Amino acid sequence: MISDFGLEDEYVGVMKGVILNHCPTARIIDICHHITRQDIGQAARMLAASYPYFPPRTIHLAVVDPGVGTARKILVVEADEHLFIAPDNGLLTPLLLSKKLQGCFKLKTDPKIAVSATFHGRDIMAPAAAQLAAGRSTDELAEEIQPLACVTLALPSVSVDRDKVTGEITGIDHFGNVATSIAAAHLQGLKGKVAIDIGDATISTIARTYGEVAGNALVGVIDSRGNLEIARNMGNAAVYLGCRMGDAVVVREVAGNDNQSRGNSTT
Amino acid sequence: MISDFGLEDEYVGVMKGVILNHCPTARIIDICHHITRQDIGQAARMLAASYPYFPPRTIHLAVVDPGVGTARKILVVEADEHLFIAPDNGLLTPLLLSKKLQGCFKLKTDPKIAVSATFHGRDIMAPAAAQLAAGRSTDELAEEIQPLACVTLALPSVSVDRDKVTGEITGIDHFGNVATSIAAAHLQGLKGKVAIDIGDATISTIARTYGEVAGNALVGVIDSRGNLEIARNMGNAAVYLGCRMGDAVVVREVAGNDNQSRGNSTT
Amino acid sequence: MISDFGLEDEYVGVMKGVILNHCPTARIIDICHHITRQDIGQAARMLAASYPYFPPRTIHLAVVDPGVGTARKILVVEADEHLFIAPDNGLLTPLLLSKKLQGCFKLKTDPKIAVSATFHGRDIMAPAAAQLAAGRSTDELAEEIQPLACVTLALPSVSVDRDKVTGEITGIDHFGNVATSIAAAHLQGLKGKVAIDIGDATISTIARTYGEVAGNALVGVIDSRGNLEIARNMGNAAVYLGCRMGDAVVVREVAGNDNQSRGNSTT
Repeated sequence: MISDFGLEDEYVGVMKGVILNHCPTARIIDICHHITRQDIGQAARMLAASYPYFPPRTIHLAVVDPGVGTARKILVVEADEHLFIAPDNGLLTPLLLSKKLQGCFKLKTDPKIAVSATFHGRDIMAPAAAQLAAGRSTDELAEEIQPLACVTLALPSVSVDRDKVTGEITGIDHFGNVATSIAAAHLQGLKGKVAIDIGDATISTIARTYGEVAGNALVGVIDSRGNLEIARNMGNAAVYLGCRMGDAVVVREVAGNDNQSRGNSTT
Repeated sequence: MISDFGLEDEYVGVMKGVILNHCPTARIIDICHHITRQDIGQAARMLAASYPYFPPRTIHLAVVDPGVGTARKILVVEADEHLFIAPDNGLLTPLLLSKKLQGCFKLKTDPKIAVSATFHGRDIMAPAAAQLAAGRSTDELAEEIQPLACVTLALPSVSVDRDKVTGEITGIDHFGNVATSIAAAHLQGLKGKVAIDIGDATISTIARTYGEVAGNALVGVIDSRGNLEIARNMGNAAVYLGCRMGDAVVVREVAGNDNQSRGNSTT
Repeated sequence: MISDFGLEDEYVGVMKGVILNHCPTARIIDICHHITRQDIGQAARMLAASYPYFPPRTIHLAVVDPGVGTARKILVVEADEHLFIAPDNGLLTPLLLSKKLQGCFKLKTDPKIAVSATFHGRDIMAPAAAQLAAGRSTDELAEEIQPLACVTLALPSVSVDRDKVTGEITGIDHFGNVATSIAAAHLQGLKGKVAIDIGDATISTIARTYGEVAGNALVGVIDSRGNLEIARNMGNAAVYLGCRMGDAVVVREVAGNDNQSRGNSTT
């Protein structure tokens, strides 16, 4: 489960109760309920980053749903041997655009079931997820539709030039590590030493681990999602840099005479 | 499980360890551990709102216990085919006053078990819940008492008049949606157009969904508990209104010539 | 599981997915993921306080790992009929120094498995924990080493004198209760009435329960870990006292004529 429900209310627990009602043997794992309220893109990226670590045929239920109660569809998507249930608002973009997409369905409405206008996670999506977990087929619960008929979000931008790669900040984690849209593969064309520009700071070290730099230095590493991350050894890079979601990040080749300027320069 | 323990400490995890010691096959679901410290009423309302979504015979363990270690009883209540364990401090009020009450018991103390003075959730209530889950009967663990011998809280107030309904704010959720004591049924006697007064604001729209109003407008909706809720489309109503728990909320009939004053007026 | 990962990211959920991949029947319980970032000592104390409440042969996975990706070992420790997996950074100190230590091992690296440089919790420790849960033996996965070859932390200080015991603050919980390094056993040599000095405050009541003092008074109690705790009845002692981790706490005998000065005096 992924949602923006937080943990102060009964919402997540109630969805689990509903799931157990329909499928008493379901294993339920929380990925995160602290998605920024109504931030569909953040949920989409987290879902894409986390689902591959679960067993095949896992049912991923993602509820960030500012349009709850309106006419938006609820999707069931099959991709990469996993199942995904979410509102049709772009949350499943990485799967709908994936080469591993296997099927795209729209959940049928069951007129016998009373549905609130404000909590389709509880009234529609949790029962559907549980019924799939209990062995019912996608075809029974949903009808196939064209993936092109679904809402998709723009993916975070990356542009790869001859001597530089330009991306953007896509997230800031619990440790203040700054995630970017630049994947390790995007950097393979750059030759020799590189520097990272982020806000007013220039970082000249891309290391394998946080601990390879001295003291509280800033460092670029490849994060656990496989993307470039800006971190501060034993510190909080995001607070230190004052950076925000969507800010530009540039990785560029540096001339040989730049070699002495190691370390971080900030205003 | 419902508690005010938060998640920064080992308290919740340790209770689960104790439960698994007594009942290795127990399924354990967290409803919420972020009840405001020692706010028994909030826990009581959340328990009443969440238990019906769980399978019959679920054991609901609710620990908000400022009187831990004193002489207060620990209750086992059977109601609506569910079981409830909590300190006798009003937390089970909605069940004790319910027509669905089936039995009211006081947990026996087991002199063989060492009990701390500060954590009866771990030392008394978790073992009792696990023993019930493992199949022991309420009669073995507890002795029947009169429901009238138990502490009850005043329920949040609602008064229904000919042309208006007056209630109070009973909660503010993760999205800043404002819960009230006014149930949908309370509003059925009002005729024609209504307006909602809350603090200095008047809200003239009661909609079915958040998205039915334009922009960031305030809107009344019937929430997932079945009560009137004040929300702000894509925004935080509680912060916007500056309202607090217990503040009055009035829904009143408006004269026909009031029709043009749609939208929200605030100071 | 214990970690400093927080719950805003997918890290904890992904580790659980990995565990279920290797051991589909594993029961996974969260103790706490809100350890202060990189505070190994806090995690060590919480692990020592919580593990005894779990069934024998439970596998305790603790990841607070500022040295992730560097050459530090990953330990598997057997103690008191439980299993513990953690980086070799002092997190397992209470077990390594315990009389109940049964075996100390270093996890073998499996060259066939791709390992990130930033998330050994997911790539190394979760798979190892799951394989142990699935029945593989410690000997298969790890090689025995000397406990003396492992990193240990200094334990929080306590000194027991003839007429006083001096300890330190070791934690502040969700309720603002202040944990100390002084165990109940340390206090047994003190005779007659005692007083507690903490910062500028003197507390003259050591009670069995919070509720034994009037109003919002400060009180010393023996907490659920068996240590002296400073609490404020129905209030937040840590905020009230302005105290911090590591501050000194002294429990001392008071002369008979001190008896009238009950209650709390603060500046």
